[in-house]
Amino acid sequence: MPKKKLHVNLFEMNTVSHIVHGQWVHPTNNRHRFNDLSFWTEAAQLCEHGAFDAIFLADVVGAYDTFRDGPETALREGMQIPSNDPLLVIPAMAQVTKNLGFGATFSTTYEPPFAFARRMSTLDHLTKGRVGWNIVTSYLPNAARNFGLADQVPHDHRYEIADEYMDVLYKLWEGSWDDDAVIQDRENRVYTDPSKVRYIDHVGEHFRVKGPHLCEPSRQRTPVLFQATGSPAGMEFAGRHAEVVFTGGATPADVRKNIANMRAKTAEHGRDPSSIKFIVQGGVIVGRSDLEAAEKLETYRRLLSLEGRLVHASFGIDLPSYSRDELIGNIIARKDKGWDKIPPRFHPNQTVGEALDALSGFDEGRFFVVGTPSVVADEIERWLDEDGIDGINLRQFHSFDTARDFIELVVPELRRRGRYRESYQDGETLRERLTGQARLPAEHFAARYRDPANLRVPAAPLRFAPPLSVAAAE
Amino acid sequence: MPKKKLHVNLFEMNTVSHIVHGQWVHPTNNRHRFNDLSFWTEAAQLCEHGAFDAIFLADVVGAYDTFRDGPETALREGMQIPSNDPLLVIPAMAQVTKNLGFGATFSTTYEPPFAFARRMSTLDHLTKGRVGWNIVTSYLPNAARNFGLADQVPHDHRYEIADEYMDVLYKLWEGSWDDDAVIQDRENRVYTDPSKVRYIDHVGEHFRVKGPHLCEPSRQRTPVLFQATGSPAGMEFAGRHAEVVFTGGATPADVRKNIANMRAKTAEHGRDPSSIKFIVQGGVIVGRSDLEAAEKLETYRRLLSLEGRLVHASFGIDLPSYSRDELIGNIIARKDKGWDKIPPRFHPNQTVGEALDALSGFDEGRFFVVGTPSVVADEIERWLDEDGIDGINLRQFHSFDTARDFIELVVPELRRRGRYRESYQDGETLRERLTGQARLPAEHFAARYRDPANLRVPAAPLRFAPPLSVAAAE
Repeated sequence: MPKKKLHVNLFEMNTVSHIVHGQWVHPTNNRHRFNDLSFWTEAAQLCEHGAFDAIFLADVVGAYDTFRDGPETALREGMQIPSNDPLLVIPAMAQVTKNLGFGATFSTTYEPPFAFARRMSTLDHLTKGRVGWNIVTSYLPNAARNFGLADQVPHDHRYEIADEYMDVLYKLWEGSWDDDAVIQDRENRVYTDPSKVRYIDHVGEHFRVKGPHLCEPSRQRTPVLFQATGSPAGMEFAGRHAEVVFTGGATPADVRKNIANMRAKTAEHGRDPSSIKFIVQGGVIVGRSDLEAAEKLETYRRLLSLEGRLVHASFGIDLPSYSRDELIGNIIARKDKGWDKIPPRFHPNQTVGEALDALSGFDEGRFFVVGTPSVVADEIERWLDEDGIDGINLRQFHSFDTARDFIELVVPELRRRGRYRESYQDGETLRERLTGQARLPAEHFAARYRDPANLRVPAAPLRFAPPLSVAAAE
Repeated sequence: MPKKKLHVNLFEMNTVSHIVHGQWVHPTNNRHRFNDLSFWTEAAQLCEHGAFDAIFLADVVGAYDTFRDGPETALREGMQIPSNDPLLVIPAMAQVTKNLGFGATFSTTYEPPFAFARRMSTLDHLTKGRVGWNIVTSYLPNAARNFGLADQVPHDHRYEIADEYMDVLYKLWEGSWDDDAVIQDRENRVYTDPSKVRYIDHVGEHFRVKGPHLCEPSRQRTPVLFQATGSPAGMEFAGRHAEVVFTGGATPADVRKNIANMRAKTAEHGRDPSSIKFIVQGGVIVGRSDLEAAEKLETYRRLLSLEGRLVHASFGIDLPSYSRDELIGNIIARKDKGWDKIPPRFHPNQTVGEALDALSGFDEGRFFVVGTPSVVADEIERWLDEDGIDGINLRQFHSFDTARDFIELVVPELRRRGRYRESYQDGETLRERLTGQARLPAEHFAARYRDPANLRVPAAPLRFAPPLSVAAAE
């Protein structure tokens, strides 16, 4: 069996401080240039030079404003605000590259599927098949309030809406136009054979969409489908829909278990469990010597902003306002200021002091390595073989030193070991390179709509929660 | 008084056949390349070479499917279907140009204002102030059905929704962030001064939007506001909002009257009536000799598609299915197949034969000229001086021969006459070049929100129609 090669996406967001907070103040960091086209074209050219799979753009559509009852801390930190639209930087990056892929995050909760379907088809045309979509359902209360709702749609209900959203998209992307619909027959003056295009006539619980899709079929039709899982509803949803799953875990055994569970879930949905790819968020600090690597780590540690991490991680709980001995579980039990949920990174039996120390330190979890290229490559080989992952979203401590270091120091070492592509010969589209498939495979839920007759057959929706009436966005 | 110079936008749409139908079959026409980035970058570089103001992108979000009860004719003709998203080609064009502006059409009827505000701010950042927005409310029944509605929102009610939509956008664009909010103070680790950013807390009849805006202030803040008028509601709306108005008329007197009426309407809204610019759709076929120009005209006349024009113009009425002597008014009076409205380009006393002849011919109206550069320049000077317009949206018969001919033959002649800019020295942003202003002027409706106190003062909405309950989009 050939050695597994590492897939790498540069983890990005159209903002100042995405996920490693406080680093924007580094004198040579370019984060403040995110408003400029040149920031994106420079990043794209660098990543293509390093034969990365893609630049992967996170997104949120609201401010983190529950911490200390307002958006002030997020604003001061540049913590995902200001932030710009992720889709609109892709065409400029596509223009200066030939092979690099682009993943964009978009939420199924607030905007109409017809317009989104057209935007993604447009991007797939412009990039000739180099786009992926990170399916999210949004978790920020402020996002809901920006789109006409009083508060968030409950978690499991968001996934039910998302499932119908996908159904609409598949009908538009896979079912509305046949492959040979566009004939461009100049002599007979026929651009499209109308017999090969159809309405989708979707009528569901949340959406009514007539069609036809406005775009002719693009190279990939459906963009590569990425999703992060965790909750049971998220796993079920990914089992039906996702081609690439973001996963994690504290130990290799944890990670392997998460992956095995996810593969089992895809099998339940009639899909080939080996076809799913698993990506983790990876942190790599590499130096030509141990000393150089340690010095970089020390720099990033020094710049780290606890406030930035608090606002990102705490979901409202103002840890520094409590005694260090207080148990997080007690704060939640008392429902101080209405806090009634343990934030994802915390535990009820943790003290406030322990939680603060964890946030202040540079504990970056299982997929974090500091060292020389050979140390880093050793560790990455363990991720591939022991944890069983397929790739990383490379977390940026510094833009663009993190990516440049990885390309100059780690990529050559991985190539020597047969663990990294020599060129983009492994495929022309993002899907071909990530999954080896040109289109969504025949057993995927979406494929049913390639038979026009199935557009008339209502799909069985995924059900996670008791029925709930939600005010329509807008 | 200095001679008025002509403003020119290339009139485009992210589709095959935008407005002069049948021409895509011309052997050297590039319309079929609209899915490719290179089509757009080539167009943009050409237009910048010619010192055009902008590339102006029309759009619709549905198919023309009332003609012969389906989208078949539109599909065969490539008549605005397939069509891709207009905003997404702008970043790639911006990447290969420095000065050219971009106008994009977007409808206020179907998609949430918060997301659109962010998209336009993103574009204004990426282009450094080179974007404009053509405000439309959508008129295609199929578009409504793609966004969850059973049929179109009635005309005047669409403008009421649009007026509140603008209110939300202005609050986000002009009011949510102060000019000096972003300080990027690395020493004190402050990206944004939080005291200079605020929620908008919009609560209106159609929209509830919390804010803050996710984007920091862009160069123009509000994109240049374009609008086509005609109806009383449209005029009223433009009087409050539009900076550049699309107009027309059969004679110079008509055009002058339309312009005078529009200026009077802006004055009623407390604005400087001389500040509004007027653009018409212009057709120019130019040759080095009269013969060359006539030959081009003959080519385009020969390729013209009556079917394409019928589906575009008829709004459903299948003229060729009637006797040539039938009066259009009679067809409407009988409500054949439910047709009960005279399509915009027709008259009740016209016979079917007359209407068909008008559509079959090459009658391109007042702003159409065929000839040598001096004949064209003479005519354009009349448009500027007799009709009183400021510029044209240049209709493309051939992509990109129409633009190339204009740049090579007409621009030098206009420059000799002092009627065309020598370079982009007349401004750095689209607004500066079109209106001479850096931002929306102080007397514009939007400017009130520069005082944060006014975010709390409900604006008096424009009212055109009796109250009407409309099902929310989605």
